Amino acid sequence: MSWEQWFSDRVAEREAAGLRRVLRPRGAHDPVIDLAGNDYLGLSTHPDVRRAAADAALTWGAGAGASRLVTGTLEVHQQLEDELAELAGWPAALAFSTGYHANLSVVAALVGRGDLIVSDAHVHASLIDAARLSRAEVAVAAHNDAADVARILTANPGRRTLVLVESIYSVLGDAAPLEELAAICAAHGALLVVDEAHGVGVVGDGGRGLVHAAGLAGHPHVVVTVTLSKAMGAQGGVLLGPASFREHLVNAARPFIFDTGLAPASAAGALASLRHLRAHPDLPAVIRTRVGALADALAVEAPAGAVLSVPMPSPQAALAAQAAILDEGVRVACFRPPSVPDGISRLRITTNAGVPDADWARATEVVTRIAKEHR
Amino acid sequence: MSWEQWFSDRVAEREAAGLRRVLRPRGAHDPVIDLAGNDYLGLSTHPDVRRAAADAALTWGAGAGASRLVTGTLEVHQQLEDELAELAGWPAALAFSTGYHANLSVVAALVGRGDLIVSDAHVHASLIDAARLSRAEVAVAAHNDAADVARILTANPGRRTLVLVESIYSVLGDAAPLEELAAICAAHGALLVVDEAHGVGVVGDGGRGLVHAAGLAGHPHVVVTVTLSKAMGAQGGVLLGPASFREHLVNAARPFIFDTGLAPASAAGALASLRHLRAHPDLPAVIRTRVGALADALAVEAPAGAVLSVPMPSPQAALAAQAAILDEGVRVACFRPPSVPDGISRLRITTNAGVPDADWARATEVVTRIAKEHR
Ligand SMILES: Cc1ncc(COP(=O)(O)O)c(C=O)c1O
Ligand SMILES: Cc1ncc(COP(=O)(O)O)c(C=O)c1O
Repeated sequence: MSWEQWFSDRVAEREAAGLRRVLRPRGAHDPVIDLAGNDYLGLSTHPDVRRAAADAALTWGAGAGASRLVTGTLEVHQQLEDELAELAGWPAALAFSTGYHANLSVVAALVGRGDLIVSDAHVHASLIDAARLSRAEVAVAAHNDAADVARILTANPGRRTLVLVESIYSVLGDAAPLEELAAICAAHGALLVVDEAHGVGVVGDGGRGLVHAAGLAGHPHVVVTVTLSKAMGAQGGVLLGPASFREHLVNAARPFIFDTGLAPASAAGALASLRHLRAHPDLPAVIRTRVGALADALAVEAPAGAVLSVPMPSPQAALAAQAAILDEGVRVACFRPPSVPDGISRLRITTNAGVPDADWARATEVVTRIAKEHR
Repeated sequence: MSWEQWFSDRVAEREAAGLRRVLRPRGAHDPVIDLAGNDYLGLSTHPDVRRAAADAALTWGAGAGASRLVTGTLEVHQQLEDELAELAGWPAALAFSTGYHANLSVVAALVGRGDLIVSDAHVHASLIDAARLSRAEVAVAAHNDAADVARILTANPGRRTLVLVESIYSVLGDAAPLEELAAICAAHGALLVVDEAHGVGVVGDGGRGLVHAAGLAGHPHVVVTVTLSKAMGAQGGVLLGPASFREHLVNAARPFIFDTGLAPASAAGALASLRHLRAHPDLPAVIRTRVGALADALAVEAPAGAVLSVPMPSPQAALAAQAAILDEGVRVACFRPPSVPDGISRLRITTNAGVPDADWARATEVVTRIAKEHR
């Protein structure tokens, strides 16, 4: 059989299972109100952020030109790292070209064959891939079940161990019991890796994230991943931890060493978002207010973060609701198996603090009405 | 032992082995002539490319805002994909946020446990990680040894198999025997994955790459990775292949599906570079002329691509030469174990067609003189 036939067969299989996905390019001036992306604070398109990204492209060029270790470390990377570490309350930060790279790096640089990874059942694909790449043994802990983590650690004394969690989970929008997990890790000598992709910019005092809110910034048994592509509105990822952690990564993390540095426009865009957040520490409160009201209207529990997950009776119902909502000019996302951890199809509605009040009011009216019709 | 202690110990180990690496941020107006990066055509800082990247940030914002499958596919991604596919002679292209993501994706989406990967001994870290991530069995073939590849394929009949190579190898600068490899793959039903990170923009008619030059564009047993962060001067990666290949990746490649789309400024910067290359098809010839003259002056063999690799008698000699060259205002890179495939330390000198003639003349005088003193 030819390879082309093999590719076509795979696509046809997904088609038959109702799971085929297609890309729909959007224009720059999209009239649809977007409640599907992860631009939680609307900063990706904020004038200051656009301007900073554009200025960086004009000043530095379109690319970093080399690995960070060769000539690809720019002053704008350093500034971003320093200011993000400061905001989140950590001694040091290291920027990567994606959040995915940051997650692959932290896991594969810290554990290897013979070591142990305890992974929450709901963690993101990038952490699952990271665990696989590391070749460490992986034990999956029940979701948000600190006792299960403790049980696994107790059964594996003396092994170098990472515990992988998200602060706010992307699909269900629930928060991890971070204080309990950090205490368990400290008691067992394990390191808690917290992915704050959906936490920083969204929760905690001034958007400093859930780790900071839990009083765990700088904790000796915790390190943190931040994504620059969500609330920070740009591209890239950052790891936060002690200075020695940063140094170790610079020397050992393959997806850092053997990769071109983050593009100047992306680094500068993220830096401008971070500065905007620092100047407007009340911005994340807009998310809380909006998501709380929308959760009430839909009679679902308010999430810990910016994403409201609305269970639907079937994949078909979820798709039909999504299409009807789009017909009225509002885009929401739809999660179906196999992209959900529990088999339940959902509408995924992102609270975006940057959507103007009138648009938000219209969008939530549409979403509430149509979601109810399909449940 | 605390984690901080563990990190510090790792760093101290590298220090003791003379392998500790540090990041040196550079300013926007660096007076040093850079022969260390991978900006082979100098397009990263070309006025049209800077402007295109800046305009995209102003038009689209600093980030794509979501996964390509949700709302993160922008018209500029589609344009980039269409025009790169056209230039390189393939039916379809798919853009990723880094070249690393493209390599992880192509391997892990095409083979899995029980399948076979035949990997050239010199392939890039991203392909090695990709192979590991896929969980397929990996057989390492001797470098550029098509007969060894054939031997491994013959010994493994009927298995789904990928053969991983680079077109131009990044460290030694030599070219792969692509025609022979493609014929072997066709005979055995294997798929040849060619990483053109150092080929596109550098070799072949109009910079279309070595696969095109070898008459293999569109070959049913070949697919290609292109990096946007080297000759294209931006950030990102692209996979080229049949339309069904692109469709399969959209549906199956985790580092595509679960990652935010490439930042608009990076996509637009790469697109502007590509258009510049199309309008100036003779640009890669500047590389050939320059690298040929420099190789003559240094009495080493001219490489297939833009990177001249100059063997040095010891890591110390390589470092000393690099430092003396920098003292005279020219930056070259230095490869030492464990970053070299054969244990030989090297100066790595990048030909950059964008460096003005006078600077190039001065830089090559400095490099030639000092390298000779240290050999
Ligand atoms: C929890 C989580 N971690 C990591 C990532 C990867 O981040 P990036 O898109 O910057 O690669 C994502 C989403 O993309 C995510 O949701
Ligand atoms: C051969 C090769 N493939 C892939 C990559 C990764 O590309 P990127 O830097 O765009 O992630 C590189 C260098 O970085 C490379 O040299």
